[in-house]
Amino acid sequence: MNLMEFSEDQVKKAIKNGQITISVIGLGRIGLPTAVLFAESGANVIGVDIDPKLIELLKDGKNELDEPSLDELIKKNIKNGKLKISLDLKFTIKNSQVIIICVPTSINKNHSANYSIIKKVIEDLSGIIIPNQIIIIESTISPGMVENYMIPVLERGSKLKCGKDFFIASCPERANPGNIIKTFKNTPRIIGGITQKCTNIASAIYSSVIDSEIIKTTNPKTANAVKLTENIFRDINIALMNELAILYEKLEINIFDVIKASSTKWNFIPHYPGPGVGGSCLPVNPYYLIDEAKKVGYELNLILMAREINEQMPEHIVQLIGKSLEIAKKSIKNSNICILGLSYKPDIKDIQLSPAISIINKLKHLEAKIRLFDPYFKNQNILDIKVNSSLENAVKDADCLVIVTKHKLISNINLQNIQKLTKSPLIIVDGRKTFNSENLPNKTIYQCVGCPLIIS
Amino acid sequence: MNLMEFSEDQVKKAIKNGQITISVIGLGRIGLPTAVLFAESGANVIGVDIDPKLIELLKDGKNELDEPSLDELIKKNIKNGKLKISLDLKFTIKNSQVIIICVPTSINKNHSANYSIIKKVIEDLSGIIIPNQIIIIESTISPGMVENYMIPVLERGSKLKCGKDFFIASCPERANPGNIIKTFKNTPRIIGGITQKCTNIASAIYSSVIDSEIIKTTNPKTANAVKLTENIFRDINIALMNELAILYEKLEINIFDVIKASSTKWNFIPHYPGPGVGGSCLPVNPYYLIDEAKKVGYELNLILMAREINEQMPEHIVQLIGKSLEIAKKSIKNSNICILGLSYKPDIKDIQLSPAISIINKLKHLEAKIRLFDPYFKNQNILDIKVNSSLENAVKDADCLVIVTKHKLISNINLQNIQKLTKSPLIIVDGRKTFNSENLPNKTIYQCVGCPLIIS
Repeated sequence: MNLMEFSEDQVKKAIKNGQITISVIGLGRIGLPTAVLFAESGANVIGVDIDPKLIELLKDGKNELDEPSLDELIKKNIKNGKLKISLDLKFTIKNSQVIIICVPTSINKNHSANYSIIKKVIEDLSGIIIPNQIIIIESTISPGMVENYMIPVLERGSKLKCGKDFFIASCPERANPGNIIKTFKNTPRIIGGITQKCTNIASAIYSSVIDSEIIKTTNPKTANAVKLTENIFRDINIALMNELAILYEKLEINIFDVIKASSTKWNFIPHYPGPGVGGSCLPVNPYYLIDEAKKVGYELNLILMAREINEQMPEHIVQLIGKSLEIAKKSIKNSNICILGLSYKPDIKDIQLSPAISIINKLKHLEAKIRLFDPYFKNQNILDIKVNSSLENAVKDADCLVIVTKHKLISNINLQNIQKLTKSPLIIVDGRKTFNSENLPNKTIYQCVGCPLIIS
Repeated sequence: MNLMEFSEDQVKKAIKNGQITISVIGLGRIGLPTAVLFAESGANVIGVDIDPKLIELLKDGKNELDEPSLDELIKKNIKNGKLKISLDLKFTIKNSQVIIICVPTSINKNHSANYSIIKKVIEDLSGIIIPNQIIIIESTISPGMVENYMIPVLERGSKLKCGKDFFIASCPERANPGNIIKTFKNTPRIIGGITQKCTNIASAIYSSVIDSEIIKTTNPKTANAVKLTENIFRDINIALMNELAILYEKLEINIFDVIKASSTKWNFIPHYPGPGVGGSCLPVNPYYLIDEAKKVGYELNLILMAREINEQMPEHIVQLIGKSLEIAKKSIKNSNICILGLSYKPDIKDIQLSPAISIINKLKHLEAKIRLFDPYFKNQNILDIKVNSSLENAVKDADCLVIVTKHKLISNINLQNIQKLTKSPLIIVDGRKTFNSENLPNKTIYQCVGCPLIIS
């Protein structure tokens, strides 16, 4: 079967009728929903991963992601045979018309891009792919990596010609973890193929699972530039708010009042300061582009500066902790400091590159007595500290509470009740503007990032 | 009359019934529309300025701003006596209940804030104000300037107590030049007074002229922080696009394709690269906050970096001109270079801090033969060069056209016709993505900022 000879309508029909087999490589936070939704659309899907434990789990219809409605979709599609799970890349590829790559990319300790996993996949594929296949890259990569690395490697290994014998397109994931199934379907997707026909066919494939717009762009590198530009936009704007937050603390201005009022201007959209940014995208994607720029002798100074500011925020939080304790004539050393929230964003179970990690490490170094609480990580060991199983236990006799993640359960905390458990005064360093400063109980020292210090 | 004893409804009624006199200090691009609209609302308005020529012009019902519907509003309100124009600050103030300050602020050559005009106004007022007056600052100033400078100066000079004998609020202008009357009425305004009552009364005053929301904020410094934050947000985001534009030129990616596709993400809003930013706000407002931060020992590195990038764009345009000419084996020296558009934004007559100025100065230094065309500046002298009266004359025998401002008339240029007048090949350096690269005539070298070079 040669999809490139199909019309877009024929592609959609073939998927619906179960005539197309799609392999999804990498069954993590992006690949798993992708595989499941294509199975739902009618395609035969084979999900492949290198982790035998994950494969066993999935074959049983289970998964470790905490995503609404994902569990039931996996169970259903495993049971009805639309979704198969495999460790065998070669077998999977030989039986597919479409190959979707969803493996993670990251950065090395020196902040250079780490593409080792996806490079391994491309090398492996170069010896396996068969004529007329279309490869679609969802993984986040530098613009040009498809054109300058993947195509040469695939052509060399397969002896096939890209754009004639096989095809490649980028369709970068735009997932919103925590609500991934819904946002996968509702968010427009960007597709850039190596030829116009390839872009059209890849768009037809995704139109089976995306209810929203599909934007056909110029080529793979443009699609990848879109993904990085979006995330850099967020990183820069959060950095701006972090830089302003530190200034407005000094000027005794509440940055949240400023953001609220600024948001009424037609050309402003709000971003918020915090203890730093985390997750698998914002802290790493900017470095992919910084790296790529270096190769052509160009320094992305603004983007680098934004990274510096956001990476420095955990240190700022630690400084706020120190200053707040000092008011009560205490120091970080030997104080009971309770970190509330570990995830990098609210109401998901994900600690990847969360600022909580840096804050905990810094507090350890300063010899604080650290307690952790996060409803998503109860009883787990995080940096050799066991996460408390109850909020009450975590805050008992605490000298300082530090809000890192505004999980619902944390923002619903009743400070009047909590105050009875902690030491007095109640000291809160709030990275997320969790509490209304007008409702603080008496004898509270409240330092929210970007706000004047409040002593009630 | 003591406005502070009025309810908000009483204030509105008193304005409508012509019982309130408002003086507006500074009759430029902000003060004039403010004065006119308050006169329209029923208030008696006295506009005051130090420029005798401007006063004479306005008394005749004329003005030099190119703003839709402003002319007729001035004529009408001068004629019916609602708007008076005066050189006499003392007389004006003695007869007003409300004083609105709309004088310009700017920066010095070393980029420090230049508040000389507004400081002079405040000093003058300190000897003139009478009890129960409310002073409203529309001028853009640093957060804290009302609290730390204006109030002490006014109290010292007047022997009156702020918050008791007289009142002060910030209501920073949020004008959109080019459509100022309409946007003045339709744009929400931020008001922060020195007391809650003062905020309420100032809000009531503005509700007579603003059809949109009025946001009451904490205090004057918060209102001023809002104004600076909004403009810095724009400056940073334009800088980001400028930084990416230079990279994407090198990677042969079209940044306008990237921005278009990125704009389909729920949390992205588009900004565009260009030859640099101009006008009285973006190039100067960031320095007000940078200055203020320095006073408290803090460096706003991200904001400074954005300024550097935006200020460097005219140089980048000149480099693009040089490279494009080089392809045709020409150099900037002695080439006929035609600058199209001088205003800092399209379809207004305003060259304040426009990037055109830097570009022209740089080209002069490189000994180019410079021609200028801008429909709003025909026959005027700009940097000792007379602006051409016709587009055709300006482009005749030009070696290179440089688009700085996308005035409608310029974006409607027919390149096929223009090509017959210029030297061959037609070389265009486009700072504003004015032309569709697919419709270029043959023998054209087209270098748009942020895009791959096109030779057709």
